[in-house]
Amino acid sequence: MNSEEEVNDFVKNGHQQYLPHLSIDSVIFGYHDQQLKILLLKWIGLDGWGLPGGFIRRREPLSQAAHRILQERTSLEDLFLQQFHVFGDSPYRLQERSAREFTEKYGLVVGDDNWLFERTLSIGYFALVDYSKVSVRTDFFTTDYRWWDVSDIPPLLFDQNEVVEKALATLRLQIYHQPIGLNLLPEKFTLAEIHSLYETVLGKELDQRNFAKKLVSLGLIKKLAEQRAIGPHRSPYLYQFEKEAYEDALKQGIVHTY
Amino acid sequence: MNSEEEVNDFVKNGHQQYLPHLSIDSVIFGYHDQQLKILLLKWIGLDGWGLPGGFIRRREPLSQAAHRILQERTSLEDLFLQQFHVFGDSPYRLQERSAREFTEKYGLVVGDDNWLFERTLSIGYFALVDYSKVSVRTDFFTTDYRWWDVSDIPPLLFDQNEVVEKALATLRLQIYHQPIGLNLLPEKFTLAEIHSLYETVLGKELDQRNFAKKLVSLGLIKKLAEQRAIGPHRSPYLYQFEKEAYEDALKQGIVHTY
Repeated sequence: MNSEEEVNDFVKNGHQQYLPHLSIDSVIFGYHDQQLKILLLKWIGLDGWGLPGGFIRRREPLSQAAHRILQERTSLEDLFLQQFHVFGDSPYRLQERSAREFTEKYGLVVGDDNWLFERTLSIGYFALVDYSKVSVRTDFFTTDYRWWDVSDIPPLLFDQNEVVEKALATLRLQIYHQPIGLNLLPEKFTLAEIHSLYETVLGKELDQRNFAKKLVSLGLIKKLAEQRAIGPHRSPYLYQFEKEAYEDALKQGIVHTY
Repeated sequence: MNSEEEVNDFVKNGHQQYLPHLSIDSVIFGYHDQQLKILLLKWIGLDGWGLPGGFIRRREPLSQAAHRILQERTSLEDLFLQQFHVFGDSPYRLQERSAREFTEKYGLVVGDDNWLFERTLSIGYFALVDYSKVSVRTDFFTTDYRWWDVSDIPPLLFDQNEVVEKALATLRLQIYHQPIGLNLLPEKFTLAEIHSLYETVLGKELDQRNFAKKLVSLGLIKKLAEQRAIGPHRSPYLYQFEKEAYEDALKQGIVHTY
């Protein structure tokens, strides 16, 4: 959506194209160089930062909608987007006031029964990317974007601070169950590299020796016979994700080695 | 809902009271005596078994709706119901045909734009109970109920077999992260008791000594100084869930001891 005319049509007739009462919010975690950040957008007509989000088309598969919305708002494509929670415990029209402010600001004359004034439940998705490798391009609705440090998130629109907290808790819980780091590390990596990634995501220090032993015993990574020369006297062994065995285990819902 | 008049009103005017496009399905796992079962209902007017489910009132918090629906359909109350996934990848009106059959069977004259003929996404919840301790009472919509063994689930309505599979995978994944067994075991239990529960839920054999060591090292259970006399020469030690430490860890999203 890139013109004011399209926006006008979206507000007035969007309910013909999109399912009412439901939206999607995406929490995109960005990791790079021992920093964990979150992608936030500045929405036009709304005072503040918010998550990339949007609506589901009437005949569109849910996961396809999640990918399309992210692509439209940010140009991010082909992410491993994971659904994690539906936020629907507020019985109020959380976005009603914002939608009214928006329509007033743009001088749109709409009825009190406009679809955007309805109660809307939000389905949360998250992904983890290397933010140094992605380029973000905003659309008409979003005037600016920024990667914010997870420890320094500003007050967000609606109940989105709660959405971010839940996403972070889920990411931390799943980091030992899913090969979440797969796209963030080289195919063959050193223990120091995966150790840094896990410490950053979990936001705490981890004893490096115990950490390595645990990841190997969980069947998450395996030690290779290769070493990488990183200095005159430093050639650490390389490791690799046990991707296949891991995915099999995940399918069966059994990822522990108990 | 208990009379034909109420059902008639629900079909014709339900969209005034409930949010369209969204429903809730509950997978109630029942454990007892080394058996794991699932509660299924026989819906009137529909040919087959299905999950307890229903719709969200327009101003009703989502989790409250999940509890109300289960209570109305089955009389089960105060369960630890956990949301686990939204099923929305089918772009079709999965329940349209069923809704049409139902209205025809009951001679209800409704328009083609009836709210029950719309595409509906389903939010899945699950819980784990001791099925020997619950009494199920069905409502007008559900003529019968039965606890089915998880290894022997019949073909279910709509896409509900997928819902059950995903619920089971989630339960198995979370059994080492949440005190899921808390309500299924006595406050103080033997290793044999918790071992049976976990073997049954996971559907596989677990070495009892390694299993106990792992649960203790994960901080999930602790060994007490007490023993229980269960025979002339048998007095196994008792164990207890580390409930508080465990819940703290869970809040922080950190449940491992790495």
